[in-house]
Amino acid sequence: MCSSSSTARFRPFQETCTRNPIYMQALAVAQHVNTVVLKVHCSLPFRVLGVQYFISMTRPPKAQPSLLFRQLFEKESSTYTYLLADNAHPDRPAVLVDPVDKTAERDAALVEQLGLKLLYVMNTHVHADHITGTGILKNKIPEVRSAISRASGAKADLHLNAGEKIYFGNLYLEVRPTPGHTKGCVTYVTGEGPDQPSPRMVFTGDALLIRGCGRTDFQGGDASQLYNSVHSQIFTLPKDTLVYPAHDYKGHTVSTVGEELKLNPRLSKDEEEFKRIMKNLGLPYPKMIDVALPSNMVCGVQDPVAT
Amino acid sequence: MCSSSSTARFRPFQETCTRNPIYMQALAVAQHVNTVVLKVHCSLPFRVLGVQYFISMTRPPKAQPSLLFRQLFEKESSTYTYLLADNAHPDRPAVLVDPVDKTAERDAALVEQLGLKLLYVMNTHVHADHITGTGILKNKIPEVRSAISRASGAKADLHLNAGEKIYFGNLYLEVRPTPGHTKGCVTYVTGEGPDQPSPRMVFTGDALLIRGCGRTDFQGGDASQLYNSVHSQIFTLPKDTLVYPAHDYKGHTVSTVGEELKLNPRLSKDEEEFKRIMKNLGLPYPKMIDVALPSNMVCGVQDPVAT
Repeated sequence: MCSSSSTARFRPFQETCTRNPIYMQALAVAQHVNTVVLKVHCSLPFRVLGVQYFISMTRPPKAQPSLLFRQLFEKESSTYTYLLADNAHPDRPAVLVDPVDKTAERDAALVEQLGLKLLYVMNTHVHADHITGTGILKNKIPEVRSAISRASGAKADLHLNAGEKIYFGNLYLEVRPTPGHTKGCVTYVTGEGPDQPSPRMVFTGDALLIRGCGRTDFQGGDASQLYNSVHSQIFTLPKDTLVYPAHDYKGHTVSTVGEELKLNPRLSKDEEEFKRIMKNLGLPYPKMIDVALPSNMVCGVQDPVAT
Repeated sequence: MCSSSSTARFRPFQETCTRNPIYMQALAVAQHVNTVVLKVHCSLPFRVLGVQYFISMTRPPKAQPSLLFRQLFEKESSTYTYLLADNAHPDRPAVLVDPVDKTAERDAALVEQLGLKLLYVMNTHVHADHITGTGILKNKIPEVRSAISRASGAKADLHLNAGEKIYFGNLYLEVRPTPGHTKGCVTYVTGEGPDQPSPRMVFTGDALLIRGCGRTDFQGGDASQLYNSVHSQIFTLPKDTLVYPAHDYKGHTVSTVGEELKLNPRLSKDEEEFKRIMKNLGLPYPKMIDVALPSNMVCGVQDPVAT
């Protein structure tokens, strides 16, 4: 990056000034330049001696991404469960999003193997296609607290409201209401800022799926509401935001906001077209709904005493 | 980061020296400090005016991680396919590792949707549990070249040797021989250096699975060889290296070298214990082997003219 001519121009100054107060002040200027850039966290183009340099700086080691992240899959219902932990925090506090009853033992084992302290088991909504693993995990790890949106009407230790931040160590998930698939659907978004994961990550539940979305014909679903939820709460995030849905049926694991804005065959359309698509899906009655809903309304707790 | 006292100490110097040759040279020193750090690509602790600062700098924008990465799943054989592309390169060149015939259409569609130029379809080995999607992809995208290890004995456009680097744009995968599951197994590792993904990523095929490994009783398998392959070629990578296997049967998607070193119930043992475990697995005859091997020895090419 540094041309030899510019190096030649400041070398004599350096040589004469080393250990000289002026040189020390020059070093302080260097530090000042750095500090300014550290504060604004961006690349700084500037011209020195007619040569343009680009200096890109990041914050000290603590700003290194400290997220431990695991995407986990349950084959029968094609559900993704997400484990997030602050790996830099001495307690390694963690949250688990959308666990499934059938794989709850696997999730608990992984939490233990990785030495994590599971704080919250969070659901994006009251699922109709599988029973949540929340109850099993609470029984196995008694200090864990269950969390779901207040709007879901389900029982839980923690009822979440729009805009709340759920901290695990220095990292957090922000709660964004995204009703439409169910009336209580929320989306969790990783934090904003230099200490938070970059690019941001969004856990969309069934509101936004990869090249799709959840159905809107049960559980207080409403196509118009879903359209507006996704467009106002998810599609307004930076385009490189990683989209992690609650399900995928074709083996995709992740997408981006930019990709779904452009390529989602339903939600890239205008609202009227979207409503027409959703109205004409002709889907069968959800086969698990009568079993799953009653259980998931109490966060899947298996022990009647604990409800 | 910058205390007010140190700021105060260099402010007068700045004020008097702005537009002055000395100030310009001081700025050049600032640039010099940056350039040195840019060259060594590390965090630099140093003391200025008795206050310790940590300056962490990265290279200009082109050094931002440019990897586009997708992990894809094929449910029937529980196989993972990996798509990697250099997102910063104008052509967006890409490679696909271990595609499956049943999901090859999905993979081709994704490549097209993302505007990638697929250069290579690379197999980690001659699979016995599914038919590779390589042939289908070559038929759909004629400029794609198939790649597999020379040691596999299989037909391909490109036969890979130990230590080769397969470039896609400015990114590359390094070929590491890891025989033992089959005689021709290789592991692909993302590049080393500031322009390459960090942490590194390793695509282990069946040599190393999450908390497991491939069987060693068919296709020239050898438990002792597998043990030494994994320990010399994979476990020597940095502990934070992300481990992406060819399969997972429990819904895990990723692990790390550090985790497998400690938690792999087979490969964390000594070699004699490992050989004993592998000898006593009592696995059934691989159900797909008689169909998959003949096809995969020609990289799954479906059109007999094209072999």
